[in-house]
Amino acid sequence: MNQTLDKSSTRERIIWCGLQLLSQQGLAGITLGRLATLAGMSKSGLFAHFGSKEEVAFALLERAAQLAQVEVVASAFEAAEGLPRLRQLVINWLGWSQRAGLPGGCPMAAAMFELDDSPGPLRERVLELQLQWQTLLTQLLEKAIKLGHLNQELDSAQFIWELGGIYLAHHASLRFMQDAQADLRARRAFDDLLQRSRTTNE
Amino acid sequence: MNQTLDKSSTRERIIWCGLQLLSQQGLAGITLGRLATLAGMSKSGLFAHFGSKEEVAFALLERAAQLAQVEVVASAFEAAEGLPRLRQLVINWLGWSQRAGLPGGCPMAAAMFELDDSPGPLRERVLELQLQWQTLLTQLLEKAIKLGHLNQELDSAQFIWELGGIYLAHHASLRFMQDAQADLRARRAFDDLLQRSRTTNE
Repeated sequence: MNQTLDKSSTRERIIWCGLQLLSQQGLAGITLGRLATLAGMSKSGLFAHFGSKEEVAFALLERAAQLAQVEVVASAFEAAEGLPRLRQLVINWLGWSQRAGLPGGCPMAAAMFELDDSPGPLRERVLELQLQWQTLLTQLLEKAIKLGHLNQELDSAQFIWELGGIYLAHHASLRFMQDAQADLRARRAFDDLLQRSRTTNE
Repeated sequence: MNQTLDKSSTRERIIWCGLQLLSQQGLAGITLGRLATLAGMSKSGLFAHFGSKEEVAFALLERAAQLAQVEVVASAFEAAEGLPRLRQLVINWLGWSQRAGLPGGCPMAAAMFELDDSPGPLRERVLELQLQWQTLLTQLLEKAIKLGHLNQELDSAQFIWELGGIYLAHHASLRFMQDAQADLRARRAFDDLLQRSRTTNE
């Protein structure tokens, strides 16, 4: 048996089990014991791959970011530059975690509420990932403005801030409130945000 | 010594320490061991007041809701009916947990992201509290519409949904991103929501 392949596929299994835990229970739900049980291995077997639960948590955040890259970002770049691309990115973003095969919600959104008062490297990493995401949104928004698809006077930072609110409201209404209208409300709020960003304010 | 008073003040101390934990670390941060340490008592001493960590969690949610009632709701009802009262309620709501003396964020907002995939009585209770809050917002909004302060054609449910997004975006930007402009952005978004709810859509 090819031992390298075996090791890599075991690591892959651990990561996938960890993503289920992360998406359903947040970072606090990641313990080595729980993860070993879920992955069908001993705790010492798990230690051969990850030395601590922090190490697992970092690996899971990276993998969640990669999943989002594939599910949310990649196909948006097939849309035309400017507003079509921005619009596609946001449509892909809303509810992405389920389409990526995760059983629970968006790990980044949950981490922002879980880690807000927990200083340390894990919080720093989530913050970096969040800032990267906001930078991408801003780039696409500013391209749409430059191409004349949106109002030249638009306050980009305010737009991105309000868009973040639509994402979080959608997450809470879809997953926590289990509101059947969550998707509809989010699309309406986003369309309305775009609509008022198209015309010059009087 | 008055034993009833002593028992009640010890319980009060436990609850207050629990609220610190809840607001900083979420429901997952509440363990009897941690709470006993924080309250400066033994675990068996704690058991005289609360039989399980679930019992503590319920008591803390009730107390958090009472705090919000005092900090957010009470003074809003001193404002004139209609838009002034709705406006004051929302202004009180944004960032209320710090003004209520909690060291961390809003326990209800955090619980919506923490418990979304955790069925059970705790989730049910947070859901009830959240629905009560939305009902209050809706009543005040509909009064403002009835008094002609806001557009008669307004979609109340959409308004409340978007307002929830402003609250969550404010929480994430203030507490997680530590954005110095969080208050300004939230006020701007709320003013803008009110502004477009005043005029009839063409």
